[in-house]
Amino acid sequence: MPNEPAIRSNIAWSDAERIVVRGLDLPSEIIGKVNLGDMAYLEIFGRLPKPEESTVFNALAVTLVEHGLTPSAIATRMTYLGAPESMQAAVAAGLCGLGTVFAGSMEEAAKVLQEALAAAPAETDIDALAAAMVADYRARKRTIPGLGHNLHKQGDPRTPRLFEVARENGFCGRYVLLMQAIERQAGKVTGRRLPINATGAIAAVASEIGLPWIATRGLAVMARAIGLVAHILEESRSPMAKAIWYRSEAEATNHIEK
Amino acid sequence: MPNEPAIRSNIAWSDAERIVVRGLDLPSEIIGKVNLGDMAYLEIFGRLPKPEESTVFNALAVTLVEHGLTPSAIATRMTYLGAPESMQAAVAAGLCGLGTVFAGSMEEAAKVLQEALAAAPAETDIDALAAAMVADYRARKRTIPGLGHNLHKQGDPRTPRLFEVARENGFCGRYVLLMQAIERQAGKVTGRRLPINATGAIAAVASEIGLPWIATRGLAVMARAIGLVAHILEESRSPMAKAIWYRSEAEATNHIEK
Amino acid sequence: MPNEPAIRSNIAWSDAERIVVRGLDLPSEIIGKVNLGDMAYLEIFGRLPKPEESTVFNALAVTLVEHGLTPSAIATRMTYLGAPESMQAAVAAGLCGLGTVFAGSMEEAAKVLQEALAAAPAETDIDALAAAMVADYRARKRTIPGLGHNLHKQGDPRTPRLFEVARENGFCGRYVLLMQAIERQAGKVTGRRLPINATGAIAAVASEIGLPWIATRGLAVMARAIGLVAHILEESRSPMAKAIWYRSEAEATNHIEK
Amino acid sequence: MPNEPAIRSNIAWSDAERIVVRGLDLPSEIIGKVNLGDMAYLEIFGRLPKPEESTVFNALAVTLVEHGLTPSAIATRMTYLGAPESMQAAVAAGLCGLGTVFAGSMEEAAKVLQEALAAAPAETDIDALAAAMVADYRARKRTIPGLGHNLHKQGDPRTPRLFEVARENGFCGRYVLLMQAIERQAGKVTGRRLPINATGAIAAVASEIGLPWIATRGLAVMARAIGLVAHILEESRSPMAKAIWYRSEAEATNHIEK
Repeated sequence: MPNEPAIRSNIAWSDAERIVVRGLDLPSEIIGKVNLGDMAYLEIFGRLPKPEESTVFNALAVTLVEHGLTPSAIATRMTYLGAPESMQAAVAAGLCGLGTVFAGSMEEAAKVLQEALAAAPAETDIDALAAAMVADYRARKRTIPGLGHNLHKQGDPRTPRLFEVARENGFCGRYVLLMQAIERQAGKVTGRRLPINATGAIAAVASEIGLPWIATRGLAVMARAIGLVAHILEESRSPMAKAIWYRSEAEATNHIEK
Repeated sequence: MPNEPAIRSNIAWSDAERIVVRGLDLPSEIIGKVNLGDMAYLEIFGRLPKPEESTVFNALAVTLVEHGLTPSAIATRMTYLGAPESMQAAVAAGLCGLGTVFAGSMEEAAKVLQEALAAAPAETDIDALAAAMVADYRARKRTIPGLGHNLHKQGDPRTPRLFEVARENGFCGRYVLLMQAIERQAGKVTGRRLPINATGAIAAVASEIGLPWIATRGLAVMARAIGLVAHILEESRSPMAKAIWYRSEAEATNHIEK
Repeated sequence: MPNEPAIRSNIAWSDAERIVVRGLDLPSEIIGKVNLGDMAYLEIFGRLPKPEESTVFNALAVTLVEHGLTPSAIATRMTYLGAPESMQAAVAAGLCGLGTVFAGSMEEAAKVLQEALAAAPAETDIDALAAAMVADYRARKRTIPGLGHNLHKQGDPRTPRLFEVARENGFCGRYVLLMQAIERQAGKVTGRRLPINATGAIAAVASEIGLPWIATRGLAVMARAIGLVAHILEESRSPMAKAIWYRSEAEATNHIEK
Repeated sequence: MPNEPAIRSNIAWSDAERIVVRGLDLPSEIIGKVNLGDMAYLEIFGRLPKPEESTVFNALAVTLVEHGLTPSAIATRMTYLGAPESMQAAVAAGLCGLGTVFAGSMEEAAKVLQEALAAAPAETDIDALAAAMVADYRARKRTIPGLGHNLHKQGDPRTPRLFEVARENGFCGRYVLLMQAIERQAGKVTGRRLPINATGAIAAVASEIGLPWIATRGLAVMARAIGLVAHILEESRSPMAKAIWYRSEAEATNHIEK
């Protein structure tokens, strides 16, 4: 095995008297002063947010907490049914499904926006860039991430609000403009309305506040962990997992001649 | 299979135009107005917190976000090494370890406090109750949850701060008094200092704000999910998992004669 | 932090030329010669099984592979729906639910049998021991593990077959006798038939072949991992997760006035 | 929500008297007659293997059970340290890391072999096909899956044995020939020896017995679950997780000036 270099972490340390997270004394500088969203910002960015950053970051995070009885929530409830003593494993089971199908489109939208603008000169024509991106996706016959919604066909109600919060706090720059240009171009070439969904709006605004695309899935994961805990608490008082199980099993095997 | 009743969830619903979480319109009443900690409170309690409740709940939550390079953080980094495309599974792997050894002592402390005071009349002598509880633990030769710390032997620096925040916001009632009485009694009968640790302080203050003991582990799980995302981001830039793996494997098998 | 002793593992090692598992050369002594069940035996016991041990161990393992569309299988399918690129995480999500409710009763049955006979002298009257154990469970108002079944009310068809395989291979000793005595005593004192279920039969036979009770849950976990892979493969060709999700979500929230 | 079709599963069913898996009566046709590897084959293929298929399938499976103190094994041990009551979650945590880095190369090798031969006419020149495939990988600057090994630089000792078992049982056809041709071509164009590793050998032989590439990762997952249970049992008797944790944490944060 090769020699490996020394290992280092810069997130936190403690000794007999002190506990320090990202350079701040946890008891005197964080507890009672910092809300959970700002703490998440501190963990990710290594510093506390300015007020405008805090408002926008928290807006993104709260949008991702709760999406109703999702596949993740069902997986969590099924796990809790079998292992009620391991609530942490039930949350873990639900998080395991935050992959390419759901959380992935947000990550891909952020990646595409960040890579396109990283490679583009400052004076880039945003509409031309968007047109090229849309054409590229269509040539590869792939779905453009961040557009369209199964349920909210006339427009995702979260999108205008997220852009409004971003704008009011000074975070409505090139990423948001590019996402909106992509929406226009996609509508033009496909001939149907493909409104920016929450995924696309979060990807654009997250890019505005400097969140690397790789961290956007992390934002979804941390937010959804909160929602899954709420589903477990509801399941513990008002269960549904057993009913879903019994019905599904009965239906799925009743075609077999016995 | 028996007939199962209809299933119901009261957390969230959506239709083509609206998304509603715990009775609040997500775009207009939550996004841009509610921080992540208050969103967690909304999810758990079904209503937004009052300002004092918000301060105390966020104080508890931020205390649980980051504990350094814990076994959970190592499990998360090891998982990320093998499956960097599945950040969610790496967080899930880390959460799986929040069981009885670490998160469990907080849960047990909250359970013990809540059950003791639920069964006690209003005029109960808190010191006598604490003495009986300590005696019971000692008779069963079990560790009293919420007391003592391997590293912070002279006192956990988070404890006085958490109690201060609770007191300033009107949440320093019978649960905190009982926890403090347990600390005194344990010190008296064991003859050594067993200061209340963060686990015990959180258990007492969480009980003050009405968090059921079963939800305290959930609080740890949601908070730690945030910290584990930060460890993944650091691992992606400044890895240590491979070094820990190579060294551990080399040492663990070098005693075998080959 | 205290000094920790050197770490050691005795399971496997490799160098440039060789790979050795439990002292056997993997290429020449295992591959092509050992079946998967015997490999599991080798991993757990540190040696290959004798033919009779192999038959019984494999019988226990195959019994645990597939239980139909269980909560675990549903959790796995839900996870696969969101993260089809992470099949391993879908299996992991399903395994997370193998806790006290399902796998736990097998573990508890094995623990109870092993602890009772470890503490009992060789000439112990098995019926008297069983009577005391049943009385103890009833005094604590707890369910006796290993007895009764929701569906197989007239007797679990796996139980007589497992005992038959055990007997034919010389593994029908005190643990099986004690489990059967518990069945008789429980029937006598409750006045209803409480036949030994597969859980109880596996617990007894696993004890006969020397499997520590702590490993019985492990046996269930490894076996079920196989079954969950099969559910993923079926889900990939003939999906049901989305249907279960849509129906459950629609029903669970349709009571809310919108 | 759209109407979803009826859900169906063809894996297993049970009623009060019977338990049937893949059309076989579990008690009378499986228990005591089928080993764990053949049971896995039955689950995946829907029928029991012929003797030659059984030997080859079991050979593939046992090769994947144990790879020593891997990142997965460390993640499992770390999880067990925090949640010893949830062995299933510790296995789950370890499985979560079987992603693109380790299990993925086997999956990709199988996919590449199966897609190349599915598209090729029966009389295809295997060497020309291999040359084109190697050229394509080099043009995309990607690593050819299934070749080379960090430790076994002169050749992976599992490879010749796996091919031998395959040949002895009549499963040494076009997939194995193509994998070997890729090895020759890669050696020729790179000028260095790039021997087929276990990953490549398993991919080729799995393709010979008709395992779809998507199932190869599943094979790794089910096999490794067995190995991870063995690591938990060793950890329970002879722990190392705490030592790895303490050392890693101490080293990783000792650079911070305090």
